[in-house]
Amino acid sequence: MADTSHRPENRYGNRPTMKDVAARAGVGLKTVSRVVNGEPGVTPDTERRVQESIDALGFRRNDSARVLRKGRTASIGLVLEDLADPFYGPLNRAVEEVARAHGALLINGSSAEDPEREQELVLALCARRVDGLIVIPAGDDHRYLEPEIKAGVATVFVDRPAGRIDADVILSDSFGGARSGAAHLIAHGHRRIGFVGDQPRIHTAIERLRGYRTAMADAGLAIHDDWVALGTTAPDRVRDAVAGMLAGPEPVTAILTGNNRVTVTAVRVLAAYHHPVALVGFDDIELADLLEPGVTVIAQDAATLGRTAAERLFQRLDGAADAPSRVVLPTRLIARGSGEIPPSAER
Amino acid sequence: MADTSHRPENRYGNRPTMKDVAARAGVGLKTVSRVVNGEPGVTPDTERRVQESIDALGFRRNDSARVLRKGRTASIGLVLEDLADPFYGPLNRAVEEVARAHGALLINGSSAEDPEREQELVLALCARRVDGLIVIPAGDDHRYLEPEIKAGVATVFVDRPAGRIDADVILSDSFGGARSGAAHLIAHGHRRIGFVGDQPRIHTAIERLRGYRTAMADAGLAIHDDWVALGTTAPDRVRDAVAGMLAGPEPVTAILTGNNRVTVTAVRVLAAYHHPVALVGFDDIELADLLEPGVTVIAQDAATLGRTAAERLFQRLDGAADAPSRVVLPTRLIARGSGEIPPSAER
Repeated sequence: MADTSHRPENRYGNRPTMKDVAARAGVGLKTVSRVVNGEPGVTPDTERRVQESIDALGFRRNDSARVLRKGRTASIGLVLEDLADPFYGPLNRAVEEVARAHGALLINGSSAEDPEREQELVLALCARRVDGLIVIPAGDDHRYLEPEIKAGVATVFVDRPAGRIDADVILSDSFGGARSGAAHLIAHGHRRIGFVGDQPRIHTAIERLRGYRTAMADAGLAIHDDWVALGTTAPDRVRDAVAGMLAGPEPVTAILTGNNRVTVTAVRVLAAYHHPVALVGFDDIELADLLEPGVTVIAQDAATLGRTAAERLFQRLDGAADAPSRVVLPTRLIARGSGEIPPSAER
Repeated sequence: MADTSHRPENRYGNRPTMKDVAARAGVGLKTVSRVVNGEPGVTPDTERRVQESIDALGFRRNDSARVLRKGRTASIGLVLEDLADPFYGPLNRAVEEVARAHGALLINGSSAEDPEREQELVLALCARRVDGLIVIPAGDDHRYLEPEIKAGVATVFVDRPAGRIDADVILSDSFGGARSGAAHLIAHGHRRIGFVGDQPRIHTAIERLRGYRTAMADAGLAIHDDWVALGTTAPDRVRDAVAGMLAGPEPVTAILTGNNRVTVTAVRVLAAYHHPVALVGFDDIELADLLEPGVTVIAQDAATLGRTAAERLFQRLDGAADAPSRVVLPTRLIARGSGEIPPSAER
């Protein structure tokens, strides 16, 4: 038998092949192939003999070669913003579970909110011939994907729409959720409300800003220039933005934050502030209910986002040929205390 | 040109091939191959002509076929407990970044703490011919991996050791960290301390229990049967365990919790309890410092765990042939308030 020491350059030379199994079992190669692939036409006795040889030799089927012949790789790609962000964890797991139910593996990676990195990762996944893609886009132009989609790589966009192409998209109601969050603050008496969101080129940031603006306009409230701050979610930037809104000539009495990372930093700043400031955050965060006050949030359901996208993807892979659709999942306002703080009489 | 409508069964038939590129550019197939693979021997003029044809046709290199010829797939597998668990997020991202620096894609999946699912996922990754594996094991017998490791699939275990085989392993100091957590409570006057941990077949749960027992023994303190509860991290089970330790004939005055999920539930139970109970939790959790009291934790560095494991993996893939090693990363006790609550005089 071939040398089995650990020598990376012999990666394939070391492995027992189907020929080795056939020789040991005293059967033909085609018979081994049938057993390995679960195809009919093999007597139970022969199947047992082949299986014994497989076990004795430690033969492992090479799915890479099989799939090239069959045209499917039984793998899908998932591109999301950041594998480390707790918001994407449930989405990631939900996609994995749907993939698993379809016998597919999941290759995933982080775009780091960089359109070039998103494209690089997507194209690497396509070069690896994933059957389908789920993309949380960082960029706003996905025409680079058109050859792949034409070649049959089903693609579903999540959380933000595809740019410049038609494709299935699953979104949360960013606009409506933010509008209800701002309306909630207005209903509790606030007139001076700030918005701290993610970078302005990100679709969800713009939609949430739009929701906030709409709620303010619906209530006949003007928005002071200092009350809107879009930018990175890095704690330093968010801290400065929040502090700025509280210290300006027209300080806010309430803040609406655009996503979980902004909310976490805003909670810290406001916890140390000498004065109660109302807060509604987009996205729920762990332990939000145990803080004093509990954090009022507009919650998305990341797991449902992921599951819906993955199920749509496999519908496409199974041949669904209807026009690209847009699904918008509702958000849910959870009032826990911070969003119901009234404007202070002093201000 | 071939029909470019979306027909999954024509997945490969639709794609422009290198032959199509060669025909359009008026060059030989080998020339196209050189351009695609970045090999020398092509004039700038010819290279430009080939590249134009590539762009015009939307040709995309098929890495699946290439890698079979070269013996490496430029992909690694990562098996962790749960993609949705915020503890693993930074580990996941750290592994991705190291893989990316080596030009490799990351295929990951959840074991759901089920040894059978772990094995199924690992073998699926091997069938997909990943170059290497990083495994947070759910099971305690990894002899099933021996044929793969012999065939050259470098494997590094993280967070818990491999079972019944020798392999590289990167761990956090579960024993020492838990011991220091219990010692911290003892130093603050506690004599009746409980431990709530994960399922007893999980290595980290046993090591942390051992650390707790050792600290108690070192201080000459007996452990009441009711004070140790190992089991699932499901909130109901943890709630009952904590409540039981507080209500028994010898109620505890402090609790040491075995991981982030147990800590989160314990924090909730104790927040609603009529009496202050000290708490030290294994693993840091987001916003732990903003709670009242802040949560005292024994923090691991999940990102460093992941990065260290991935770097070790690529050392192996680059040919490192030293004996399997065991790296133990230190933990860090962060005192924030909950661990320094003194035992109540009433009890």
